[in-house]
Amino acid sequence: MLRTEINELLTQTGPGTRMGDLFRRYWMPALLAEELPDDDCAPVRVKILSERLVAFRDSQGRYGLVDEFCAHRGVSLWFGRNEDSGLRCAYHGWKYDYTGQCVEVPSEPETGNFAANVKLRSYPLVKVGDVLWTYLGDPEHQPPLPEWEFVRVPGEQTYTSKRWQECNWLQALEGGIDSSHVTFLHSGNLNTDPLFKGSKGNEYNKNDVKPFFEVAENEGGLLIGARRNAEEGHYYWRVTPWVMPNFTMVPPRGDHPVHGHFWVPIDDENCWVYTFDYHPVRALTTAEVDAMKAGLGVHNENIPGTYRPVANKDNDYLMDRDAQRRGEMYSGIKGIAIQDSSLQESMGPIVDRTKERLVATDAGIIKARQRLRKAALALAEQGTPPPGLAPEHQRIRSASIVLPADQSMLDGVRDAVVARPGVAQTTV
Amino acid sequence: MLRTEINELLTQTGPGTRMGDLFRRYWMPALLAEELPDDDCAPVRVKILSERLVAFRDSQGRYGLVDEFCAHRGVSLWFGRNEDSGLRCAYHGWKYDYTGQCVEVPSEPETGNFAANVKLRSYPLVKVGDVLWTYLGDPEHQPPLPEWEFVRVPGEQTYTSKRWQECNWLQALEGGIDSSHVTFLHSGNLNTDPLFKGSKGNEYNKNDVKPFFEVAENEGGLLIGARRNAEEGHYYWRVTPWVMPNFTMVPPRGDHPVHGHFWVPIDDENCWVYTFDYHPVRALTTAEVDAMKAGLGVHNENIPGTYRPVANKDNDYLMDRDAQRRGEMYSGIKGIAIQDSSLQESMGPIVDRTKERLVATDAGIIKARQRLRKAALALAEQGTPPPGLAPEHQRIRSASIVLPADQSMLDGVRDAVVARPGVAQTTV
Amino acid sequence: MLRTEINELLTQTGPGTRMGDLFRRYWMPALLAEELPDDDCAPVRVKILSERLVAFRDSQGRYGLVDEFCAHRGVSLWFGRNEDSGLRCAYHGWKYDYTGQCVEVPSEPETGNFAANVKLRSYPLVKVGDVLWTYLGDPEHQPPLPEWEFVRVPGEQTYTSKRWQECNWLQALEGGIDSSHVTFLHSGNLNTDPLFKGSKGNEYNKNDVKPFFEVAENEGGLLIGARRNAEEGHYYWRVTPWVMPNFTMVPPRGDHPVHGHFWVPIDDENCWVYTFDYHPVRALTTAEVDAMKAGLGVHNENIPGTYRPVANKDNDYLMDRDAQRRGEMYSGIKGIAIQDSSLQESMGPIVDRTKERLVATDAGIIKARQRLRKAALALAEQGTPPPGLAPEHQRIRSASIVLPADQSMLDGVRDAVVARPGVAQTTV
Repeated sequence: MLRTEINELLTQTGPGTRMGDLFRRYWMPALLAEELPDDDCAPVRVKILSERLVAFRDSQGRYGLVDEFCAHRGVSLWFGRNEDSGLRCAYHGWKYDYTGQCVEVPSEPETGNFAANVKLRSYPLVKVGDVLWTYLGDPEHQPPLPEWEFVRVPGEQTYTSKRWQECNWLQALEGGIDSSHVTFLHSGNLNTDPLFKGSKGNEYNKNDVKPFFEVAENEGGLLIGARRNAEEGHYYWRVTPWVMPNFTMVPPRGDHPVHGHFWVPIDDENCWVYTFDYHPVRALTTAEVDAMKAGLGVHNENIPGTYRPVANKDNDYLMDRDAQRRGEMYSGIKGIAIQDSSLQESMGPIVDRTKERLVATDAGIIKARQRLRKAALALAEQGTPPPGLAPEHQRIRSASIVLPADQSMLDGVRDAVVARPGVAQTTV
Repeated sequence: MLRTEINELLTQTGPGTRMGDLFRRYWMPALLAEELPDDDCAPVRVKILSERLVAFRDSQGRYGLVDEFCAHRGVSLWFGRNEDSGLRCAYHGWKYDYTGQCVEVPSEPETGNFAANVKLRSYPLVKVGDVLWTYLGDPEHQPPLPEWEFVRVPGEQTYTSKRWQECNWLQALEGGIDSSHVTFLHSGNLNTDPLFKGSKGNEYNKNDVKPFFEVAENEGGLLIGARRNAEEGHYYWRVTPWVMPNFTMVPPRGDHPVHGHFWVPIDDENCWVYTFDYHPVRALTTAEVDAMKAGLGVHNENIPGTYRPVANKDNDYLMDRDAQRRGEMYSGIKGIAIQDSSLQESMGPIVDRTKERLVATDAGIIKARQRLRKAALALAEQGTPPPGLAPEHQRIRSASIVLPADQSMLDGVRDAVVARPGVAQTTV
Repeated sequence: MLRTEINELLTQTGPGTRMGDLFRRYWMPALLAEELPDDDCAPVRVKILSERLVAFRDSQGRYGLVDEFCAHRGVSLWFGRNEDSGLRCAYHGWKYDYTGQCVEVPSEPETGNFAANVKLRSYPLVKVGDVLWTYLGDPEHQPPLPEWEFVRVPGEQTYTSKRWQECNWLQALEGGIDSSHVTFLHSGNLNTDPLFKGSKGNEYNKNDVKPFFEVAENEGGLLIGARRNAEEGHYYWRVTPWVMPNFTMVPPRGDHPVHGHFWVPIDDENCWVYTFDYHPVRALTTAEVDAMKAGLGVHNENIPGTYRPVANKDNDYLMDRDAQRRGEMYSGIKGIAIQDSSLQESMGPIVDRTKERLVATDAGIIKARQRLRKAALALAEQGTPPPGLAPEHQRIRSASIVLPADQSMLDGVRDAVVARPGVAQTTV
């Protein structure tokens, strides 16, 4: 249970909020690279941390992320012409380069200095992997580029999708660090989905339905372990890393690709979920990529031309009570991603955490909130940079592993959770 | 005309409001029994008096009406699994019985007492007739079960439908106690609708278009009489009972079934209209039931799978100006129910009663508001139980009757308005 | 850039606002005459200056514009019966004549005086040309009927259409007095549209892409001139008149019909754009009228049965990026009207003018705002009638003309901008 003011602290990420200031210390996914596929392609509206922006890719392949609205009279630059190394407002032809610098105001004398004094608010937009990343904070605090393994492995080893979720980022993230719901909500999928089925780990899962949860502090965030019985004198551990503020990974199964999420605030009542799947040491197979594109695994099917799920709150997520009854889908909703979003959205746009009743298996959620709160206050009050900025905090992996009963999780997985180029994931 | 504060008093029925407290003294229709047709069928979202609830029918046929949201983290239980005598949250498997008592929290040790200390807000849900009734008030004040004749006659003698009306409950109710609009708004239907046409009473109706209205206090509410000329020295009376706070009946015509309504607040800007038709002493004929199901009489046609009318404010209620011009439908809108809802919704979600201009024929409305206000204040200030709770207040009927000119309405209909098992309605 | 309080002053036109009081000094277009085509036809809902009204045409062809809601209980009179020289409420048959006077309350004794004391708020509604005009102000200040040439020429010489624009009236108007955007936003249309192409003026346009703008005060408003190079020692002038508060005209091209707009507030976040095309001295050709009806020129295509454009913000105005890229349509949006509305709506319902950055070519906008503000304050503080009320202020035209380089615009166009019956427009 949280007090109202703490719930507000954690859920509000617009300009001038404390959590907003914290987010503005990190590189965040702003778009998939596929959204700006070509030089001079159509610009894209982007809303992130409650700021309305427009992204474009100029004639030289440079990415721009600038205020959506022209400095002149406030018209949306989404209607603009992306041409000749700049985005030109469709109203009076004011032209901006990829840094937001105004480079031409056709009505003003060419000899004058007018355009030079006009600059849109703008942010860096950088392609790393299949994602375009932005940093909305003060340039003097800009950290190194993202080091997440899913964007650092070769392109054929990774796949990322994206969906709009109609609730606050935090209740979406909380699903990502809450391993305990997998046993229930997703139980119908683990043994049938081609991206999950057929590992030894799944059998441990099935044989012990009351896992014990252990949450360990990590430099960049948390390591959340779910412990189940394995062979005599051994435990099967599934370890979910959370890195501040909004990165999580699902523990692997057999040789399947590893997956995880970024939970990025659009505004306080909406977020983008970036979902990735990668294999550290081999290319994804055609069958795997096809399954991901079809919305299997942790991905989902979107309405064509959009990133809104086909199954959404307007159609009750295509609830199938018969499938629920037959046990094929625990909640009657198809697909892990939509199973999560349906429930998280059902809590309301921003859940009232003064009413909740947390239990032992919520330890990960409780600790994550504490760290977020502590980091936001330390930043606001002492200017302390938050955890998760260092490249080594980002070179992390989930892991699944069998350990002797007397070995601690932290000891046992210390190596396994480090992302090392050319080294396979630790998985069972 | 009402002062703003009285309009607010009468129209607000959420928790903690005075009119809300008054409604919380009565059994109210919460669902049609058809909405929970089988044991372990799909749960149904219910909003009533601004409270968000979920209704379900357990494996043993017991009905539950509980807080829509899980006590754990606030997920909607509508997504839950209704199985093994309880409703199980789809997120982490917390399970509740039909009383809202938590009976299982899978992550907690079975030996512990955790679940026993978790209980959802819940209300009784009882099938009487074709309706599931709830009582949202303090258990110590719970009155006897409803005695309304339409739910007490054998099943083959009664039929109930339901529709969503997009305005405050009071302006919907006011249509039900306002006999004077029938002459205008519904004039196209009385002589053609198979559930209305062909009674002697209809002729009196036609021959005297300026009825005189008399409103008499009754123990449970009001008796509203419309008096028209009949044979020499006689009057034709149509008597509409209103029982506190939201039950009304239409006076009968010939041997047609008798009908009436419950006007149940969903929230302050929406209400459910429960519409019933029954015959006190005979089964409804197949033709009658078919007509009701087809939306004739006081029923209506809903969008399949919902209780929203096909003709609604988004499509201007399928206004047919040609039919209006030809006089088939006075307002151009088809069907008595939608004629009412179209006009009542056109007043806005909550009509501003400071602007109205009432006349003699609004006497029923004026007196009903006075009694509602008085009862709400007496309950709030002295704790006085409101009228309409006693079973005998509910054993009431509408009536149509020819009386000698020198007989008072109250004297003349005293017996006719009492619902007596096995005795036919008094009708002309 | 405007201060917030001035932006509010200029954009708010509801009852009791200063700009609302100013608008209530003028005759305003309320409907197209085609909306009330016959005696006793269907009434039409009208919202103007934030007032909700209903318009009807009675059995004798008289136009009424009255409060939308019945004086009795507040039901919308849109559902009423328009018959026997009055509009009758569908609820209880209260009947109103075209002045809003209640003429019958069926439930009240005919001998009484009840109806005589009931009168709806009402405004004059007068057909001049193809438009029904209303005046919402104090009757004692009612000015003479409109004298605009487009409604005074014979019917075969003029055509008017109408569309809903989803933003405040002022940012729509500002498009009308902003000649400088034509060179950019509308550049794809001028040489291809049958209602624009093929004039000498278009060549001057093409040869000088940096026009100089001059704004002159006129008694009723402004004359906004765009000056381009013509033959040696001469300038080509295009002159746009703005008459207070919301009338503008586009300078003519060759012998094409002349066009212009009224920008009428619906409420603070919506406006009606009335768009006219007329020729002062000849009938419009069939080809011209067909083109206008097809949405060419400054007209547009509406969703059938409505005045909402087919291309609107819900479908991103049918943006065609390929056509944008090929240069056919500068912004990728088809049609001059929708090119304007798309950008103006993209600024938000009421643009925040504290953030804008105006330049020399915005001189017309700046001066228009100043005059509006000054006139609204003078009316509020000293009761001074605003400019634009006198018939001679309305007998105005746009003009395009070649003048010697040493002649001032005002001198050169003084005669050309006066609308004189039987005299052709001044055009190049």
